[in-house]
Amino acid sequence: MGTPQLTIEKGQQKMKQISKAAARVFNKIGYLEANLDDIAAAVKMSKGGIYHYFSSKEEILFVVLDNYMDIVLEGLESQLKVLPVGRPKIEFIIKRHIALYAHHKAESKTLLDDSNCLSAKYRKRIASKEREYLKLVGNTISECMREEDGIQREEATALAFLLFGMCNWCYKWYDPKGSIDPNALSRMIWTVFMKGISEYCGPKNRL
Amino acid sequence: MGTPQLTIEKGQQKMKQISKAAARVFNKIGYLEANLDDIAAAVKMSKGGIYHYFSSKEEILFVVLDNYMDIVLEGLESQLKVLPVGRPKIEFIIKRHIALYAHHKAESKTLLDDSNCLSAKYRKRIASKEREYLKLVGNTISECMREEDGIQREEATALAFLLFGMCNWCYKWYDPKGSIDPNALSRMIWTVFMKGISEYCGPKNRL
Repeated sequence: MGTPQLTIEKGQQKMKQISKAAARVFNKIGYLEANLDDIAAAVKMSKGGIYHYFSSKEEILFVVLDNYMDIVLEGLESQLKVLPVGRPKIEFIIKRHIALYAHHKAESKTLLDDSNCLSAKYRKRIASKEREYLKLVGNTISECMREEDGIQREEATALAFLLFGMCNWCYKWYDPKGSIDPNALSRMIWTVFMKGISEYCGPKNRL
Repeated sequence: MGTPQLTIEKGQQKMKQISKAAARVFNKIGYLEANLDDIAAAVKMSKGGIYHYFSSKEEILFVVLDNYMDIVLEGLESQLKVLPVGRPKIEFIIKRHIALYAHHKAESKTLLDDSNCLSAKYRKRIASKEREYLKLVGNTISECMREEDGIQREEATALAFLLFGMCNWCYKWYDPKGSIDPNALSRMIWTVFMKGISEYCGPKNRL
């Protein structure tokens, strides 16, 4: 037996392995169709071994999404604070969002495809973290456009959501290992968006 | 008793009413949480009355999505054919997509939020209609950009998906009854996209 600290760390490590494998299984065969046998096979454990860490498939789904949302939120506020006001913040948000998707593809797809499969008590906790993220980046993007580009509030909000759409929809089509790497895709979204919004800029800022 | 034809029409009418109400219930409380009592209350029928038309909640979900996908596909190919080649086709696709969302908000949200709740046999049938739509509009957008704007194939495909992202993500934020009407939103997406892609145009077509 190791020390209690080591045992906790080992347990956390195991839970991470299980939830990583589970996210891939959910992507492949769908959350509702997947069962604990599929997850056990993917992580090369017995079903009993999984029950040692999780009480149900739903608990695994919750942990997958909760851990992913923690990664999404981690350090975001302070990272945004140290960046110069304006466009660098928008550029950073796009790059970070696409990199998160590229590094946690299975979890990100699970979030968008399966979070509705959680029962209300779990779903609300994930939704509240999602709202926190959206509020933080949405307000930042919208403020940058209003201050730097002279875009009106209502249009700035709508434009921020269009940008989100381009970033979030990637989970439906984008393969980070394909011919467009995550940096290239971020640049593409940035270019389309910044060029695209120029029609909405105040007269001084119009291209 | 009416004639058999009238009886069929009445039945179809009733099924439409039930599925319309069900889509709203799914949006409001989530497909998994919703039960037949909620749907019965929303459509002002008894649960037994609903069982006369549908054998399960899943069957209702399937009919909601299947009918909606039929509306999405209806006439699309021939409508695209009669439009002049190039940008008018892209403009038409955006406008049609946003109008579909605005007129069938509950069904459209249900498609994006809940289609993963269908079991495989049903999910595959919906997914195949979705693929048909995506292929038709995706290829049209991508071809227009390649032919008219001299954009390379790989970039054109990625850009078409970015446009889809802007259109589809609307289900997460856009209220057609709010201050930006569906025509204004379509124009906004069109403007951002056409201006945005100008960086990717061949030298002759660059803004």
